[in-house]
Amino acid sequence: MTLKPWKFISTKLLNKFRIFNVRSDIRVSPRTGHEHDLFVIECPDWCNVIAITPDQKIVMVEQYRPGSDTVELEIPGGMIDAEDSSPVAAGVRELREETGYEGRDARLLGEIFPNPAIMNNTCYTIIVEDCRCIHTVEWDTGEDLSTRLVPVADIPLLVAENKIGHSLVAVALYYFELWQRGLKPTPKPNA
Amino acid sequence: MTLKPWKFISTKLLNKFRIFNVRSDIRVSPRTGHEHDLFVIECPDWCNVIAITPDQKIVMVEQYRPGSDTVELEIPGGMIDAEDSSPVAAGVRELREETGYEGRDARLLGEIFPNPAIMNNTCYTIIVEDCRCIHTVEWDTGEDLSTRLVPVADIPLLVAENKIGHSLVAVALYYFELWQRGLKPTPKPNA
Repeated sequence: MTLKPWKFISTKLLNKFRIFNVRSDIRVSPRTGHEHDLFVIECPDWCNVIAITPDQKIVMVEQYRPGSDTVELEIPGGMIDAEDSSPVAAGVRELREETGYEGRDARLLGEIFPNPAIMNNTCYTIIVEDCRCIHTVEWDTGEDLSTRLVPVADIPLLVAENKIGHSLVAVALYYFELWQRGLKPTPKPNA
Repeated sequence: MTLKPWKFISTKLLNKFRIFNVRSDIRVSPRTGHEHDLFVIECPDWCNVIAITPDQKIVMVEQYRPGSDTVELEIPGGMIDAEDSSPVAAGVRELREETGYEGRDARLLGEIFPNPAIMNNTCYTIIVEDCRCIHTVEWDTGEDLSTRLVPVADIPLLVAENKIGHSLVAVALYYFELWQRGLKPTPKPNA
């Protein structure tokens, strides 16, 4: 059996909430033939960045997260803006703005849907090597960050012990681990 | 520097959308002293399930996802209902309803925030061993699933090649991989 996307009937924008919209799509289930009213959270695409220093540390950021009301250990990242020429360019920008770090050979490591059940966007993971702190940070008014350099070797245990609280950060770290093992080739920079 | 949660001022429910609500929280940034209006998507907690068969396959499900408008290869899972006595019980129920499989030694493998920036909920990953198909599936009206048995050894390459599209599924598979390597102990069943 091969499953097919559900037939689209109509869509309606319900609300705008500055960083996301909520719409309702009417689609037909191929199994039952019935129409379903499906809520979709429309978000811009996101990016996050695995930034590696010359001494094999990952540039991480601690930040307060209002959804969970907790401080989380994450990697730099954010929304891909209309001004960003690509997901890679957005990742390089977010890394610089949030931490002041810049490196070489920035390229795409992976991409995933944050939640394909109810959200329409993609999160791109960028990898940047040989990163050094050479800029002043430029935080948004709502940002309050603390940079942490975490040895690459410590990452698996941090994830295993549930010290990584953001699912998209855990996914990026998994992509990084697969890349270290040679399973995940990345395109050449500027390819 | 240690970051602290932001001081809570007030909250307001903005909209209900059946499977999630949107609220607005007013909080004060400790860095700037300014009030911020923060949107939070309130969701019930979710669960997903790593179900392993005696011949070392993982019970996966293909399903249509309306957010991305794609068919995704995932693991069983869903919302934790008020009737579920625990995340583990919810996982066992979802596994049975979606695939007909049941196993032994169901226990918690990990937990993570799907998106602590804008969502308030937790996703729990349950592991169940020695799984066999012994029930008839019980799909919700909106469900249309196809069970796939995937060899455990194939998982890393599936993730590396971006064949796993749902971030919470990739996180669960990362927890499973760490558990296989002995890094992620799970509590005893019924502990």
